Amino acid sequence: MYDLIIVGAGPAGLSAAVYGRRAGLDLIVIEQTPMGGGQVVDTYEVDNYLGMPGINGFELGQKFRSHADGLGAVFKSGRVTAVRDEGERKIVETADGASYEARTLILAGGAEHAKLGVPGEEEYRGQGVSYCATCDGAFFKKRDVAVVGGGDVAVEDAVYLSRFCNKVYLIHRRDSLRAAKSLQEKLFSCENAEIIWNSTLQRIKGTDLVEGISIRQNGEDTERELAVEGVFLAVGMRPNTEIYRGTVACDERGYLLAGEDCATSVPGIFAAGDIRTKALRQIVTAVSDGACAVASAAQYLRL
Amino acid sequence: MYDLIIVGAGPAGLSAAVYGRRAGLDLIVIEQTPMGGGQVVDTYEVDNYLGMPGINGFELGQKFRSHADGLGAVFKSGRVTAVRDEGERKIVETADGASYEARTLILAGGAEHAKLGVPGEEEYRGQGVSYCATCDGAFFKKRDVAVVGGGDVAVEDAVYLSRFCNKVYLIHRRDSLRAAKSLQEKLFSCENAEIIWNSTLQRIKGTDLVEGISIRQNGEDTERELAVEGVFLAVGMRPNTEIYRGTVACDERGYLLAGEDCATSVPGIFAAGDIRTKALRQIVTAVSDGACAVASAAQYLRL
Repeated sequence: MYDLIIVGAGPAGLSAAVYGRRAGLDLIVIEQTPMGGGQVVDTYEVDNYLGMPGINGFELGQKFRSHADGLGAVFKSGRVTAVRDEGERKIVETADGASYEARTLILAGGAEHAKLGVPGEEEYRGQGVSYCATCDGAFFKKRDVAVVGGGDVAVEDAVYLSRFCNKVYLIHRRDSLRAAKSLQEKLFSCENAEIIWNSTLQRIKGTDLVEGISIRQNGEDTERELAVEGVFLAVGMRPNTEIYRGTVACDERGYLLAGEDCATSVPGIFAAGDIRTKALRQIVTAVSDGACAVASAAQYLRL
Repeated sequence: MYDLIIVGAGPAGLSAAVYGRRAGLDLIVIEQTPMGGGQVVDTYEVDNYLGMPGINGFELGQKFRSHADGLGAVFKSGRVTAVRDEGERKIVETADGASYEARTLILAGGAEHAKLGVPGEEEYRGQGVSYCATCDGAFFKKRDVAVVGGGDVAVEDAVYLSRFCNKVYLIHRRDSLRAAKSLQEKLFSCENAEIIWNSTLQRIKGTDLVEGISIRQNGEDTERELAVEGVFLAVGMRPNTEIYRGTVACDERGYLLAGEDCATSVPGIFAAGDIRTKALRQIVTAVSDGACAVASAAQYLRL
């Protein structure tokens, strides 16, 4: 039986591993894919992790990982299928049939890209539909593409794509962007980017690959066609919490209910990073959570 | 009138500067001393800032600083003597007679070392009494020294000093240490370190420089002498909030009352880092606060 099992190897999980190892805890980190690293590794450039301006996300993820590695954190690969709370013993089961036991858990499985649910979205996924401009953008050099959304990620994606795509449409359902002003200004200065306000994506069309989309302006009946070969959906995140429902209390959007101390509704189970209820989901807030969750776990363990 | 004034240039203030600049805010950072940097710059080694294992505190502080610099943060030197809340206008005054105005404030002035209040402490400050082993330790090579305290900092200090001092006494008023287990183990393995349990420092003696201390075991009447030339006090922190009393609500220890969103009792005034009420005061939690405080300030400014 371990002192602590950390589920997830993004910034929150790896920070928890660093703090856990430094606190002398016997711990393992379970990650869905080997060398996972969370969303950060799919990010082209991270400019708000204090002390590392303008770093590539993959490189930052590698630095995070090797820090935890260097302190002796043990990693196991496996998709967690169930978590059981038996009071002083918590059990984590993975898809490959393995089962691990610990006195405390830190759930740090993060969140993933929300789906729009429009016709063609599923059909053309990987055939022109993408949820990660920095991962897939390079496939669309000199092509016309559309980005859907209005937050930081959507605007960042549009700016990024405008560097090498022929034309970038940003389709947003409102008349203003939620993104940081500095990002908005960057976008406004991109000559090959066009914002299509007050409009929603209706369907994605093509044959083998995406060939175009239909959009509709709010309050209008008719749809308009745009010939694009790539569609980047940046419409928010969904927490990876399905398997915890019924065990750990969630809010209406599925995030694990936990405050700054990362304590969930179950004593001995803690939630860190994007997976928990919080106002600001950033690398730095996830890293902070990792530290706070370990402090709470150590207190629970009466260390 | 600025959008935002950040008071303090430690990890919380600098992270706020980075997030504030990226959000397009017109801001200044007021720091007590030029190139201040907060407590981190006095730390010999920082091993828990994710992605930068085992970095020297001064170097880490420089990296933090240059990140904020690179994004165009403007720094002003000055000791803040008063903060006035006039609703939509906040006024910050400094000892040199300057006065600055902004729509929002982020107070990130951190905390400082608590005093023990024993005879000789004030008299021999800088003459053998120190609050920072990593700053002053090198002056005591091959000498006998004492560290007072039982937390992470005290134990870290004792381990650090043991590398080059002749003998290190750790004087602690309880029978167990609060410090992280890994630190305790390091200390226990130091052959020239001796822990004096259940004892308190009574007085610090000397002529021009410290020559010894008197300690008393709990429940005993008699004092015992120890010949040491250095006394390192690591007995906790006190928040730098005197000037805010009466304006911003504090807890009984003087920390500014604020939750994870960093909102204080005054709309438009936010508290970030060690200065606010929180369970875990670490570099990563301060950096996270800087981001959260800016998000809250931006929301207040309706950006």
